[in-house]
Formats: sequence, structure tokens, C-alpha cells
Amino acid sequence: MSRFFSSKYKHLSEYVPGEQPKDKKYIKLNTNESPFPPSEKVINAVLEAARGLNLYCDPECSALTESVAEYYGVNSENVLMTNGSDEILNFAFSAFGDIEHPFAFPDITYGFYPVFARMNGVPFETIALNDDFNVDPDDYCGINKNVVIANPNAPTGLVLSLKEIEKIIASNKNNVIIIDEAYIDFGGESSISLIKKYDNLLVSRTFSKSFSLAGGRLGFGVGSAEIIKDLKKIKYSTNPYNVNSMTQSAGFAAMKDVKYYIDNCKEIIRVREKYKKELSARNFFVTDSSANFIFAKHDKIPGAVLYSELKKRGVLVRHFSTEKISNFVRITVGTDEQMQALLKNTDIIIGENR
Amino acid sequence: MSRFFSSKYKHLSEYVPGEQPKDKKYIKLNTNESPFPPSEKVINAVLEAARGLNLYCDPECSALTESVAEYYGVNSENVLMTNGSDEILNFAFSAFGDIEHPFAFPDITYGFYPVFARMNGVPFETIALNDDFNVDPDDYCGINKNVVIANPNAPTGLVLSLKEIEKIIASNKNNVIIIDEAYIDFGGESSISLIKKYDNLLVSRTFSKSFSLAGGRLGFGVGSAEIIKDLKKIKYSTNPYNVNSMTQSAGFAAMKDVKYYIDNCKEIIRVREKYKKELSARNFFVTDSSANFIFAKHDKIPGAVLYSELKKRGVLVRHFSTEKISNFVRITVGTDEQMQALLKNTDIIIGENR
Repeated sequence: MSRFFSSKYKHLSEYVPGEQPKDKKYIKLNTNESPFPPSEKVINAVLEAARGLNLYCDPECSALTESVAEYYGVNSENVLMTNGSDEILNFAFSAFGDIEHPFAFPDITYGFYPVFARMNGVPFETIALNDDFNVDPDDYCGINKNVVIANPNAPTGLVLSLKEIEKIIASNKNNVIIIDEAYIDFGGESSISLIKKYDNLLVSRTFSKSFSLAGGRLGFGVGSAEIIKDLKKIKYSTNPYNVNSMTQSAGFAAMKDVKYYIDNCKEIIRVREKYKKELSARNFFVTDSSANFIFAKHDKIPGAVLYSELKKRGVLVRHFSTEKISNFVRITVGTDEQMQALLKNTDIIIGENR
Repeated sequence: MSRFFSSKYKHLSEYVPGEQPKDKKYIKLNTNESPFPPSEKVINAVLEAARGLNLYCDPECSALTESVAEYYGVNSENVLMTNGSDEILNFAFSAFGDIEHPFAFPDITYGFYPVFARMNGVPFETIALNDDFNVDPDDYCGINKNVVIANPNAPTGLVLSLKEIEKIIASNKNNVIIIDEAYIDFGGESSISLIKKYDNLLVSRTFSKSFSLAGGRLGFGVGSAEIIKDLKKIKYSTNPYNVNSMTQSAGFAAMKDVKYYIDNCKEIIRVREKYKKELSARNFFVTDSSANFIFAKHDKIPGAVLYSELKKRGVLVRHFSTEKISNFVRITVGTDEQMQALLKNTDIIIGENR
């Protein structure tokens, strides 16, 4: 820390992204990326955009915003495109949180929420998951706090129904309810339809997972025109050209090629279900994940051991040291081939730890 | 504004980017873009990156950071890459500004500085330019505030010498001095060399202008390892994957093709000096701009009139309503052909207003 760093950040611990070791080539099942490349249309669109990079991108992301709004059945004024969904989430903590407007979220969820809160000086309460790792919607009803819930939740993969989500929104009319739908295309029902009924809902989405654009950085928020206007004010007060022109073009092309991505999601779901069964058959407890990852715990091998043994063997999965889930690993659903390699190595590790 | 918007932002007025009208094709001399496309190497690098967009980008921007550090003669720990230089500037206001650590900057300069200050709750003082539109370095010596100075300044184009900059840094050892060098490649001497001598200096740079990457969004900060560490803490607490992989690849390729960009800068300087003379010969007062724009005031035609008459004729320049400079227009230096078109239309407007 320099002697100039503002004291307001003295308790700030930054977020630590999933590791990206460069020592060798791994089978990378640790950061929930899609195993499928972007579509050819996306690559052509990027090439076209690259030729015009000397000119500024459209700060309003007009074409992309319209195409996203149309696909999701809302108006352009209900959508704000961002530099990944981390940006829309940070904007929301900044816009709607302060000393008098704390946040609540599950104790086990996306690890960035407490960082956003501390960064923006927003008090927060974490609410314990049920013993079966589910979010209990009743815990969030009428709590008079802003709420952020990942649905499906990470790293459990467990999903709330649209009815349960609506109950939380309807019972907290004076607070903003943020539903982070990073993984919704792999299972569960989107709450975007509810923005017409509730002015206190913000849905956060990303192109990183189901749209194979993790490296392109594209996310968006969907909410009432007023909520989006507030978030735009944050954007235009920090970084008006937040989404570069290549990424805008990539997103626009992806929206014109949705079938390719829906087919990829179907394949990921098929592979997920197959390997949930394979792991269960090997004495793993596996949550009923609706996301593009499997959350699994072996009855004999601690999560940290499984993680490091797999890494030694060239397979990267994610392990969290948080006590409640320290015996689990989170395994991104890759291709059938990648998952076979995971399984083969897991079998060896189980054999050695018998 | 929604009923949920935090009251801390009630006085926030966002930045308004230069207009990008879509009604027709303009000769665009209003946002200081390069008239030259990125080099072929950049386009090929982007294409390569596009194929791997399903994977996350490197949050550390390692290869790009190393290549930038090497070119500017510093270490990787002295450099932080950002999503445009607006992002490094916003990070700096956030990291080093607070109620007890106000900022000072010229009254006429990049219009985003007061927005960053308000956004981050940082008090600020503006210091008037001299009557000849120069920044007077003595005004900033020993003022016990953080300082941000654009060098060359915008929209005047006027530059301070390295000695003058050093005087400001040396006399404010307990405050951070930010030198925003967005336009330095078109004239003036960079202060990057001073970071080895002073731990209170942060230099902000952009690939938008001299490196033809405005649409790619790439900027960076150079400073002491401690200052960079603080700014990284802000990055990792808001948006760890802030620079997408296409932009990282574009920047890396550009650093391997510097001669192309230096030659473009030379041509822009040649054209700038030519049209400074042409405008002076038409009764314009023209500042001695060292940037990629000309700041000019006609002795008969108000800036707002010149701006709107040029726009009617398909030429976009920038006009600022701030009283002190409301009779000026800022004209980005385009190609010789674009500047000829500007001049031809200006002659017609002068003729009509005689």
C-alpha cells in the first residue's frame, strides 16, 4: 500500500479470480468457461470491427442494446450493456447501496458480492444457506435490505423457481432485488419477464458462459427504465466507452446466431447430467446443479486434496477454502472428452486414497 | 432517477462524450481520433484472439504489461493496463482522493476530471489558466493537494516542459501528481522518466490517439510500485478482467509495430502545423497546440456559429459552451484531405458572415 492510499479502503480485500497457471497446458475446468468457441459470425464481426478501431466505439452500444432488448422482449431503455457482468453488479452496489441501504446475500455464493459491498462502503449481511445448500426464499422476504441472489447459485448450482424469486421481489418493494443470472441458460427460468411488473428488480446477465464470450467481456443489466437510468449515470461518470467496438460487434453477431449457442447449452446440460451420475456412482455427493458446473464432494477425499491431486495430473478444478464447502470441488462442465479425462484421473486418485 | 438511487449521487452530473450523430456521414474532426487505421499486425492479432473468446482473458494482462514496460523503460510492477485511460483516471481519484485529500486541476482542461471527483466524493479546486491559456506551474507548487494536469492540455493543446512538471511534483511530495499524457506523442516530453525519482507521480496514457485504438479501449498508468499496487486493489475490487483479450492482443501487436504509429504521428504533426498557418491566415487566433487537434477562434464568427455551420456542411468539430472558451472550436487533425474540406467550408462560412 502506498502512503497515499485512501484510508476508506484500509479493510478492502480484493477478489481473487480463478487461477490461470501458465506453467503448462491444463484441462481447464475451473472458471466455468464454455468449451465451445464463439460462432464464425462472431469472428467475422470482430474482424470487421478491428479495421475501424481508430474511431471510438458507440458509448450507447445502440445496435447491440436494441438487439438484446428485442430478444428478451423488453425495450432498449430497460437494458444497459457493460464490460462483463461484474461491471453491472459493481454499478448496482454503487448506485443503490450506502450506509442507510445495506445489502443481503447468501453466505455461500459468488465471492465478489462482499468485495463490491466493501469497495462501495455498503454494509451487508450474509444469510446462511439451508443444510441442503439451498437458498431459502423466506429468509429474504420483507427484510428491508437490498438483495443480490445468484440464480442458479454458485458454486452450488441450485436454482430457485420464478415463483420463489417473485415472492422475494414482491415482499421488498422499497429495496432493489438483483438476480444474477450468469448461469440461467443452463437451467431455471429467467426473471426478466418480471421487470414489467416490479420496478425494484434488476436482472444481471453475462455473455461469458452460454455465449462463449468470457474473453470478450460483455454483460448487461435489465430493469425498469428508472433503475437503468441510475446505472447509466454511474457508467457516464466513470467510463462512458466501457464496451469496446469489437465486443459490441461480437455480441451483436452472437444475438443473430442464437441457435448455435442454444445447441451448445443443450450439449453442456447433457454432459453435466451424465457426469453427475458418473460421480455419484463413485461415492460423490453431487448437488442438483442447473449451471454449467458440477459441485461435488467425495465421502473420503477432502476437496483440497482432490483439487491438488487433479492439478498435478493436469486437470484444473476450483476449490474454495470456506469451511462450509471446503470438502467440495467445483467442476466446470467441459466437453465429453474433457470430462472423461477428469473421471479417469479421479478414479486414479480414489484408488490411491483407498 | 429511481426512488432507489443513493442520495450520495444527488449532485452528480455525468460526462457528456463528443457527439456521434448517426443521421449522415460526417467528416469527423470532433473527438481527437486518429485518421489512420490500426496496423495490419493489430488486425491479425485481433482475429487470432477472437477464436479463443470462450476463455477468460488474462486478468494481469501479463504479456502486454511487459511489452509496455519494456518500451517505456520501466518494470512491469510500474504499469497497470486499463479499459481506456478514463479507467486509470477514475481509479486514481478513487484510490487517492477523499474528504481529507482534495484534488486541484485547471479550470479549462479535460471535462471528465470534475466528474471523477464528484463521483468519488472528492472535493476539488479549479485553478484558472493564464490569460494566454497556459497552465502556470507556480500555481500548483506546494499546494498540498493531489493534482491532475493534462500535458499537453486539452482543449488548448498547450504543453508544459518536463522541468515545469518536475517542479510541481517535487514541491508536492505528500500528494499524488497525475500527469495525463493522452496527447504527449504529438508534442512535449513524457514525464515517465521521473517515476524512478518520485514516488508521488502517476502518468496516465492511452492507446486511443497515437496508437489508433480509440474503439479498442486501452489505457495504462505508470507509477511507483506502491501506487500501482493501490490501483490494482481498486481494479481487483471492481472488475478484474477489465481489459478483454482482443484489446490485449491489439495492444501487444501495436507495441511490436511502433514505427508505423510514430510515422502517423509525424504526418499528423505536419498537417497540424500546415493548417495552423492556413487558419491564422484567415484571421483565426490559434494556440500553439502540441496535440492532435487545433484550438482556434475566429475574430468575427462565434465558436457556436462556426460549429453549427460546419456541421450543416458535413464537418464535425467540437465546441465547448464554457464561457472562457466559447468562441473557440477544437478541430481534430485529420488527413490532409479532411483538413482541406474543413478549410473550404470554413472559407464559405467566413464569406457568408462578412
